[in-house]
This record gives sequence, C-alpha cells and structure tokens, in this order.
Amino acid sequence: MSAPTITIAPDALEALVVAALMRDDVPEADARRVARVLVLADLFGLATHGVSRVESYAGRIAQGGVAARPPIATARVAPAIAMIDGANGLGPLVGMAALDAAMEGARETGVGVAFARASNHFGPCAPYNYLAAQDGFASIVASNASTTIAPFGGKGARLGNNPVGFGAPRPGGDPIILDMALSVAARAKIRAAAQRGEPIPEGWATDADGRPTTDAKAALAGFLAPMAGHKGYGLAVMIDLFAGLLSGAAFLTHVKSWQDEPGEPQNLGHLFILIDATRLAPADALAARIADFAAILHETPPADPDHPVMLPGEREMAAFHRQSREGIRLDAAVHARLLARAT
Amino acid sequence: MSAPTITIAPDALEALVVAALMRDDVPEADARRVARVLVLADLFGLATHGVSRVESYAGRIAQGGVAARPPIATARVAPAIAMIDGANGLGPLVGMAALDAAMEGARETGVGVAFARASNHFGPCAPYNYLAAQDGFASIVASNASTTIAPFGGKGARLGNNPVGFGAPRPGGDPIILDMALSVAARAKIRAAAQRGEPIPEGWATDADGRPTTDAKAALAGFLAPMAGHKGYGLAVMIDLFAGLLSGAAFLTHVKSWQDEPGEPQNLGHLFILIDATRLAPADALAARIADFAAILHETPPADPDHPVMLPGEREMAAFHRQSREGIRLDAAVHARLLARAT
Repeated sequence: MSAPTITIAPDALEALVVAALMRDDVPEADARRVARVLVLADLFGLATHGVSRVESYAGRIAQGGVAARPPIATARVAPAIAMIDGANGLGPLVGMAALDAAMEGARETGVGVAFARASNHFGPCAPYNYLAAQDGFASIVASNASTTIAPFGGKGARLGNNPVGFGAPRPGGDPIILDMALSVAARAKIRAAAQRGEPIPEGWATDADGRPTTDAKAALAGFLAPMAGHKGYGLAVMIDLFAGLLSGAAFLTHVKSWQDEPGEPQNLGHLFILIDATRLAPADALAARIADFAAILHETPPADPDHPVMLPGEREMAAFHRQSREGIRLDAAVHARLLARAT
Repeated sequence: MSAPTITIAPDALEALVVAALMRDDVPEADARRVARVLVLADLFGLATHGVSRVESYAGRIAQGGVAARPPIATARVAPAIAMIDGANGLGPLVGMAALDAAMEGARETGVGVAFARASNHFGPCAPYNYLAAQDGFASIVASNASTTIAPFGGKGARLGNNPVGFGAPRPGGDPIILDMALSVAARAKIRAAAQRGEPIPEGWATDADGRPTTDAKAALAGFLAPMAGHKGYGLAVMIDLFAGLLSGAAFLTHVKSWQDEPGEPQNLGHLFILIDATRLAPADALAARIADFAAILHETPPADPDHPVMLPGEREMAAFHRQSREGIRLDAAVHARLLARAT
C-alpha cells in the first residue's frame, strides 16, 4: 500500500501541471487555474482527486471527450444567479468560472449562486470552499457524477457518488470545511481490495442483483451503497436535482461514463452557493463565535483518549499547512508521469 | 403501537389548532400561520412533528419559555440576505417569517437567504420546502436543535439531530422534497423500545461512555449515533454553523434543552435558501426534465418486486393528497387534548 513517494514544492508541482496541460493545447492562463485546484487538492492530502488526475484529463482531451480551448460563457440570469456554459472544458476550469461568477453575485447582492453545465470532473469540492472562505464567503459546492450508486431499494446504477462541500470562513484562522461524497466507501477502495484479492466490509456495496456483498469483484460489477441507506439516496437525488437538472446539465443516467465513453462529453453539472459572511457579523465577532464553536467540539471527552475530537476538515487543513511548508508528498509514479508529459 | 385514531378535515384541524393557540394568548393571524405549518406536517404523515406539538408549545408559553406575542423583526442586510430576530416566538411563526423574507429576496435578486435567530422548534422542514416549491422556488431549509448527538469519536452530546430539507418545484405536479434529520434513528424510536423493554438495533446509539449499545435504556442515557459516522457528524456540524452560528443564534451546547429547561429561551437558529427556479428554465422545459428524472428513478429494477423505487418525499406527497381528500388520520388522544385546549 505504501508506494514510493517524492516531496515537491507546491509551486514546482503547479508549474509541472501547467506545462503538462499546455502540451495538450490548454492555454497557459487556463492551465494555471486548473493546476491551482488540483494542487490545492494535493495540499489537503486528497491525492486521489489532485494532480494524479492530469493524466486522465489529458487522455480525454486527446480522445476529443474534453475541449482544450472551451468558449466558457457566463450568463447572469438574475442579480444573484449566473448560469455557466462550460463548453465541455476541463472541470476545474469550469468550476473556477462558476466560483468567480458566484463571488461576483455575492459581492453585489450578498448571495451568489452559479449553476454550471457542460462540465467535467472538477476535482474535490474543498479547493473551491477554501478559496471562497479566504475571500470571506460561506459556501456550498456540489456536483453530479457518472452513475455508480443504485437508488434505495433498486438494482441498477442511476446516481453518481455526488460530492458536496460546505465551507465557513474564519477571519484570521482556518476555515471549517466539510468535503464528502455520498457512498459508504469510495469505489477506489473496492478496486484496491479486488486487486489484493481481499473481501470488503459489509455495507459497502451490492452485487449486480442488488444483494449486499463482501466480494470485492462482485461489488465492482454491482453498485456502491449510499451512506445511511435511504437518507444518502435522498441526498444524492437532491444534489443531482440541484447541480444537474436545475443547471441544465445531464443528470442521472444521462451522464456519460468517464471511463467507458472517453470520447463523449459528460455534460456534468455543478452548483455553487456563496454567502458573503461579512454582511452577517463583524469579523472579530465571527472569529470569536467560531473559536467558541471549535472549543466546544474539541473539549468533548474523547471515546479514545489518544484520538481527540476533530472538526470537519481539520485533518486536511493540517496537511495543507504542513505540506505548504515542507512540500507535497506525491506518489513517485504520478510525479514521473507528470514529468514525462511536461517535458 | 396502533393507538385509536380519528379522521378530521384539514380545515377543521387547523381551526382547532388556531383556537388552542389563541387560548394561550397567541394572536389569531399568528396562530393561523403556526397551524398552517403543523397541519401540513400532519398532511404529509409527519405526525410526530405536527399538531401533536401544540401541547408542548402551549406549555412553553405558559412557563415563559416562549413568547406568545413576539415582536419578530426582519433586517435586510443585503438585497439577497435577511436576518430574522424571532424574539423567542413559536418556531413555525419565525420559520414563516424567514420563508417570507427569503421569498422576497429571491423574487428581487433570484436568490433569497434568510437567517433566523431567537427561535424555537419550527416543525419539520417539509412544509417550508413545499410552500416554497408551490411558489416556484427551489429551497434548502435547515435548523439546529437541542443536543442529543455526540461528535464522531467523542462521548458527550454536543450536536442536535439537526433537520435539513431540500425541495425542487415541478410546474404542474408534485414537488420533490427530502426532509431528514442526521441521526441513524430518531430518539422517539429508542424511547418506544425502552418502554417495551426491547433492545435496539446495533448502530443506533451509544451509552453514556460513548460505547455502542443495543440496550435502549443505556442509549437514552447516552447519545444518538449520527448517520454514516464521521459524514453525518460533519453534516450536523455544518448545519449548526450555517443555521446556528452564522444566524447569530445559539449553537452546540449553548442551545437550551426544550425538555430540561422549559422556562429558558432556546435561541434556535434556522437557515432558508430559496432560488427562483423560473429564472433557470421555462416552466414546460423544467416540468419535462423533472418528469424524465423521475421516470429514470421509477424505472430502476427493484431489489424487491413488491417495492418499486420511490423518489424522496413521494410517500409524503401521496399521504398529502390522500389526507387532503379523505381527512387527516390523527391520534385520538392528541385530538382529545387539542379539543380540551380549544374549548
């Protein structure tokens, strides 16, 4: 499980990603925005959703499934609402356009909502929640995804493992960020168990007939279980309704598979809701309330004395600070492939 | 488990609730708004959060814990943001004020956010999501609550079983609504098991030391388990951050217990986010997309042929239509107590 790693400065990693994307005809300014999102993901320790994705992004561009130079268009349909046509560009590029548009709306009216369509995999939510918080915005960010989850009581993948992120700014300190998807366990974990020939825990997945299974191979042929049964199913539905249907994007089974149909636009949809927290309370009052909030949770007696209670995103923010100082720990194979692409 | 029931027309039930609340010095117009929310809850089949609450509402007014005639104040801090001071009024009254303010913002700018503080138990979320959808708004509604949930890895109640509701309007048809709280199981179910002397399923709760238990009595002395472990914990934290902290209300352990401190204001907080869906797409296009969305889910092969896949809120909407036609089935004891209060 512990692949060889290298350590690389965030700036150097960003430059490498930019160079790699530019070789695939992505304009430099766009490549910088994509790299910003992916390197932030790695800084947070979310390596599965960081620069390791550049290879599949580049592959999709090469196969015509993603546009290298998309004419992304932002239409402001109301003072607080922007509709983004991602023109089948790289997801993080569309995500950053949506973030910008939502910030503009929120600066103007206090709240900015951006709906994006014609997009692709935009990385994890946390980078957007983080950037929003750094500018003083509380945020909700979500996306739909290609289908891996069966509806509650159904057999057949109809829903994506839709990610959702929440962020709250803390003036003078780290924001509080929750970034999660809706399956009990990530598909990548099941694939790893299958490769090792090991079973998976009960409750992670069902086989192709919708029956619970601990056989990793049967699970890969079946469906991810949504967390919390009908509640996770309900959340996945509502995220697809907001991020996919209301945005004008594809939804449910209309979303093309990233892996099985690499030449087809996915037409993913995203939702960004930003609220200007500076309108709600003075910065020092907000900081004091958040400090109190965090202290109440931190001071909860732990079930295991060696593991104090943490806030959502606290582990990721610690990784962010450590890796910003000491460099990002990156899978050596990912680094080698990036280097080969970039030069 | 099957208590005697009576059947009562929605209008008659609303009149009964209004009369009961007026006897506790609630002005008629305010009583009508509270009754609207609670009767909607019963119409949806959410009896635990409907008119059965009138008794505890009245008790709180009598004990000075809730104001019968609150000077609710709405401050518009930005074109899209309203801050509601609930002045310790009945929760549904404050909730309706927040809904109105969010609608006003959404009509003006496309999106309306209302934060409410100094409120109390506002019923379930679904009535607000429903009313928003009837006027063309997609909505997210949430509230914090008195503490019953321990943080992930902690022993000690620090979080409420915070409810959150999502709604999407369907022009010409039923809205899609998800209304849920964040515990694996409701505390009421554990109380019922304890009364019957039965064990509870694994995973519902922990004892006072934070250890998983199937002993219902030990669970009542302990904490509700959040759904999906650290993910449900994270969601409960973010709802309290948005609905409690950002609204200026009490949060976490600052929320007073409804049961243990009946004379103290709870200072609950609510969050309302409304998006004017008429700005996103023409009504017929939206209706067609939602019909397609619903069909994809309904046509999923069911794991059990006798139980077709349903959309979130579908059961509640069916109950709504049935009970609107045939009358609301109400616990006879609840009806008798309402009648005694009203006359």
